[in-house]
Amino acid sequence: MTADVATSQPTRIKPRILSGFRDFLPTQMLLRQHIIGVFRDIFEQHGYEPIETPVLEHLDILTGKAGENERLMYHFADQGERQVGMRYDLTVPFSRVLAMHQNEIVLPFKRYHIGPVWRAEKSQRGRFREFWQCDADIAGSASMLADAEGVSILTEAIAAVGISNFVVRINHRNLLGAIARSAGAVNPDEAGRNEARVATIPDVIRTIDRLDKIGPDLVQQQLVAAGLDAGGASRLLSLITARGQADTILSDVARSIGETDGVREATDDLTRLFAGLAALGVPANRAILDLSLARGLDYYTGPVVEATVEQPAIGSIAGGGRYDGLVGAFSSRPMPATGVSIGIERIIEVVTEFDLLTVPGTTAQVFVAAFREDVAGAAGLALRLREAGLRTDLSLLGERSLGDQFKYADRKGIPLALVQGPDERGAGVVTIKDLASGDQTQVADDHLVTELRSRLGLSTQE
Amino acid sequence: MTADVATSQPTRIKPRILSGFRDFLPTQMLLRQHIIGVFRDIFEQHGYEPIETPVLEHLDILTGKAGENERLMYHFADQGERQVGMRYDLTVPFSRVLAMHQNEIVLPFKRYHIGPVWRAEKSQRGRFREFWQCDADIAGSASMLADAEGVSILTEAIAAVGISNFVVRINHRNLLGAIARSAGAVNPDEAGRNEARVATIPDVIRTIDRLDKIGPDLVQQQLVAAGLDAGGASRLLSLITARGQADTILSDVARSIGETDGVREATDDLTRLFAGLAALGVPANRAILDLSLARGLDYYTGPVVEATVEQPAIGSIAGGGRYDGLVGAFSSRPMPATGVSIGIERIIEVVTEFDLLTVPGTTAQVFVAAFREDVAGAAGLALRLREAGLRTDLSLLGERSLGDQFKYADRKGIPLALVQGPDERGAGVVTIKDLASGDQTQVADDHLVTELRSRLGLSTQE
Repeated sequence: MTADVATSQPTRIKPRILSGFRDFLPTQMLLRQHIIGVFRDIFEQHGYEPIETPVLEHLDILTGKAGENERLMYHFADQGERQVGMRYDLTVPFSRVLAMHQNEIVLPFKRYHIGPVWRAEKSQRGRFREFWQCDADIAGSASMLADAEGVSILTEAIAAVGISNFVVRINHRNLLGAIARSAGAVNPDEAGRNEARVATIPDVIRTIDRLDKIGPDLVQQQLVAAGLDAGGASRLLSLITARGQADTILSDVARSIGETDGVREATDDLTRLFAGLAALGVPANRAILDLSLARGLDYYTGPVVEATVEQPAIGSIAGGGRYDGLVGAFSSRPMPATGVSIGIERIIEVVTEFDLLTVPGTTAQVFVAAFREDVAGAAGLALRLREAGLRTDLSLLGERSLGDQFKYADRKGIPLALVQGPDERGAGVVTIKDLASGDQTQVADDHLVTELRSRLGLSTQE
Repeated sequence: MTADVATSQPTRIKPRILSGFRDFLPTQMLLRQHIIGVFRDIFEQHGYEPIETPVLEHLDILTGKAGENERLMYHFADQGERQVGMRYDLTVPFSRVLAMHQNEIVLPFKRYHIGPVWRAEKSQRGRFREFWQCDADIAGSASMLADAEGVSILTEAIAAVGISNFVVRINHRNLLGAIARSAGAVNPDEAGRNEARVATIPDVIRTIDRLDKIGPDLVQQQLVAAGLDAGGASRLLSLITARGQADTILSDVARSIGETDGVREATDDLTRLFAGLAALGVPANRAILDLSLARGLDYYTGPVVEATVEQPAIGSIAGGGRYDGLVGAFSSRPMPATGVSIGIERIIEVVTEFDLLTVPGTTAQVFVAAFREDVAGAAGLALRLREAGLRTDLSLLGERSLGDQFKYADRKGIPLALVQGPDERGAGVVTIKDLASGDQTQVADDHLVTELRSRLGLSTQE
């Protein structure tokens, strides 16, 4: 494996990258950093505090409640023969942190965590094995105001990056279960007792989860194939596809299926959640009750939410829900928790597709060229500009012509270039070249910073 | 492994973390984020652009030129039976990016990359298996001004986080090799030809690398044990421990060992590098020539640099050098490159030990309590404050007493709490409670933001 550096003809290693993984070059990174900065600001505006957890964890921590995902985890035995895995999401490590550090944390704890996660998924377009999540969660509060705050942060964050055609759909895990039961589905442990094929609640929920993809007719067929009778399946479909005011939908459902199975608690939760949304100023058309929303992860125990865009057709861009049981997987002191997670990759896809944000493609605002290898003169000028707060790229091409140096700066996308030769220095002036137009003008040394700030559209107070 | 969620007594997983890995709770994270932000700003002030590379790479990419480090890498076979590893540093992935994306990059390319790396080192105090590096590199320039810019950025970055008792030591890989040769050491491929034990240049450099730890007497002994004669060893020690002006040291060395073996080129490089430092305004006492500086990584080909602090005794806090051969390991179009890397963990150790930075321990500036479950009133007030740019934590403890709510905010470290009951709302006033002093005052609604900004020491322009 080792390249033999002593031979005159070294082994060359083909430069390549793992499928499903990406390099981000500066233009992409500057957009990513901008968006992440917007999200972080919004989380902090709401008083959420950052935490960070390791990329590697003991494997049993990661598989805890989501054992079925182990095959999608990157895992291995480390040098000490410990079974370890790369984190699959930020929610399970957060729950582990809550269990481990209970005495160091003030509850309710509003935390955010922005970072990459890894999933060994089948590689396909738009699906990555390394991708970033931006999570905001509240631990230690059972209040539906906490769930509402999550939705309010989601809507604010998505709108803040210029996305307007989105809606947050809201459901309750227990309500969906009760509707499935009312249509004839049973708990998995009850299914074995009968001889005929009987649909289980998880079967039904998994089928409903495909509603957006395959449409109501196929869902109806699959529900019947799973064991529901045709009448139950169609009653179920008509209940979960009802649209309108949350209050109306909830009272219709309660009337239809009766207030058994925690239906009352679930509808009360949702009523309080929507009242919280109104108090938090979330527009009614931004957050709607959608009883067909299933969401995959089986650690949810209460409200679940998902933000989707109409265009492009990439489905969910963010989601979340309440997971009151997860901390209890790690601690004898369980703790309610709820939160939301924004998928940065899909947000970027939407922002890029519709050109919603204008972010400079380079960091430098000004380029300082060196006149005939007068590096010291150029360096002095660059120092002055940086002290005045201007991001300044000092030329490393001092041995080349001014034309070559300007061409470099223009290819980088830097808007303005400066040069000061000995005659100019004697006369106390600097030449500014606008790299887009090619125009050159001389400016007096002591007006230079003001002139540059004005051309860059910055405030001219110094 | 999978917790059985259907049983009434779920298996509980002991919450724990891998040795050498850390959780960062908010107070620590806010300091880390602040320091990383300072470094990023400085990199961008110099026109450096961000990139990001995957955490996982094909293993042969990572081991390319540093094969001896493979045992310290986290590596495994992934689901597709590919040999993969977690990145060991940010320099090798950067070189791979340069080789892969040559047509998308404008040279010289000034890039920065801030992120974690992983090393399966023996776990010990202050040494971590997951730690962050902040790297700034220039590819595509052979100019010593590029090396000088790296040192200048190092000194600026270290000073910007309040560290003042540091120095950047500078040497040249080829000069150290030539000095070793002049003392009697030979290239590894020459060593086998003789029957007597002969010291090789890498042997000698590795011994010199321990000078700070074991002192000159033991180094002298070990050089003799490695095969140098006593006179050669002591001449070598006296050359590399010379202190003073770079120019003087360099001409003394050239006189002593002669201008063979690239000595002229190396001393010319160093002369130009120190001239660049002067042009860039780096104080002479901040960056010194130290011919005993070895640095471990064998991909360096020119100047090497290392920043050390006197107190606490943790040695190097940053380092770097020129590695003109590394891109050539991946490409038939080799490319000169040089850069610096700041180790965030040791920086934080210094900053914390001497309490050099004051960073708030929480994000929220204001807490809004709910008066007798009037969540809507509190939420409206919180909304208004956020719109005015104040980071505001809305109480989720509305069912508790005001005293309990204030206690929560105080334990969080939030400086100010607000509450507005119905009487106050009627009178158009809000109560502000200073959580440190316990003082409460009422402020007219329309002066609220100005009053809060003033108490928080913010500019009172709105």
